[in-house]
Amino acid sequence: MTALLYLDDLAAGMAFTNGPVTITADEIKAFAAQFDPQPFHLDEDAAAASFFGGLAASGWHTASLGMRLLVTGGPRLAGGYIGAGGELSWTQPVYAGDSLTLRAEIVEVKPSRSRPDRGIVTMRAETFNQRGELVQKLLARMMVPRRPVAA
Amino acid sequence: MTALLYLDDLAAGMAFTNGPVTITADEIKAFAAQFDPQPFHLDEDAAAASFFGGLAASGWHTASLGMRLLVTGGPRLAGGYIGAGGELSWTQPVYAGDSLTLRAEIVEVKPSRSRPDRGIVTMRAETFNQRGELVQKLLARMMVPRRPVAA
Repeated sequence: MTALLYLDDLAAGMAFTNGPVTITADEIKAFAAQFDPQPFHLDEDAAAASFFGGLAASGWHTASLGMRLLVTGGPRLAGGYIGAGGELSWTQPVYAGDSLTLRAEIVEVKPSRSRPDRGIVTMRAETFNQRGELVQKLLARMMVPRRPVAA
Repeated sequence: MTALLYLDDLAAGMAFTNGPVTITADEIKAFAAQFDPQPFHLDEDAAAASFFGGLAASGWHTASLGMRLLVTGGPRLAGGYIGAGGELSWTQPVYAGDSLTLRAEIVEVKPSRSRPDRGIVTMRAETFNQRGELVQKLLARMMVPRRPVAA
C-alpha cells in the first residue's frame, strides 16, 4: 500500500503508464448494445461497409477503458478520481482485437480560490493502440482534496 | 422511416429531446466494476462516507447514457453518429434512481475545407436529472457526410 496523495503531493510532470488491455469484438458489441447501438459497433458486415471499414468500438467505450486504466494504474489519490470534465478527442478508430495502453501526465495543479480544502488537477491522458498510434486524447480536470491541516 | 440527413440538411438551432431513462444501483455498480472500480461507484456504504454522500454513477456511465439518448432519439444522420471529440463537464453527481433526459441542439455546421465530402457538426448535448438540474454538458464535434452530388 502506498500512501494516499493529496493535492499538495502532486506536481506537473508526474506521469505513469498502464496497460495494455485488449478490446474484443464481443465487448465492443455488448457496450454498443447498451449505450451506442449503431450498426458499425454491432455487426461486422455493417461495419465493413461503413466509414470505419471494420467493427469499431464506441468512443465512449474507449473513454471508459481509459478510465479503467487510470483508476487501476494511476497514483492513489485521496478522495479517488472525481472528474469535473475535460476535453476529449478521438483521433483514430479502435477496432476489435486492438490493445490499448494509457499514458497519463499531470499538467497543472491548481488550489481552489473559493474552497481551501480542495483544488483542480489537470491531467493529459493519452490512449495508444498496439502500433503506438494515438486513438484518444483526454485533458481531464479532477477534483482533489488538500491535505487536512492538523488541528 | 424518416430520410437520412446529410450535412447539407442540418442547421444551427435544430434541437430535440429524449428520455427519461432511469439509472439503477445495479447498473451503476456493473458499469463501475467494468470501467471505474472506485468505492463510491461500487458500494452504498463506502459511497455514503465519500464526497458524493451516496451511490453515484461514473461520469463515463452518464456520458454513455447520454450517447444512448442521442443515438436513439436524435436525427437520423447519414453515416451515423461519428464523434471526433468534445468538451465534457459533469456539473452534478448522478445518483441511483435518477432519471436522465437529454436535450441536444446543433450549434454549428461547418463543411470541411480539405475534405469536400464531409463536414463537422457541433452539437450541445445537455443531460438533466428529474429535478431539472444539469448533470452533464457536452459540446460534441461529429463528422457528417455531405449529400453526394449526382454524377
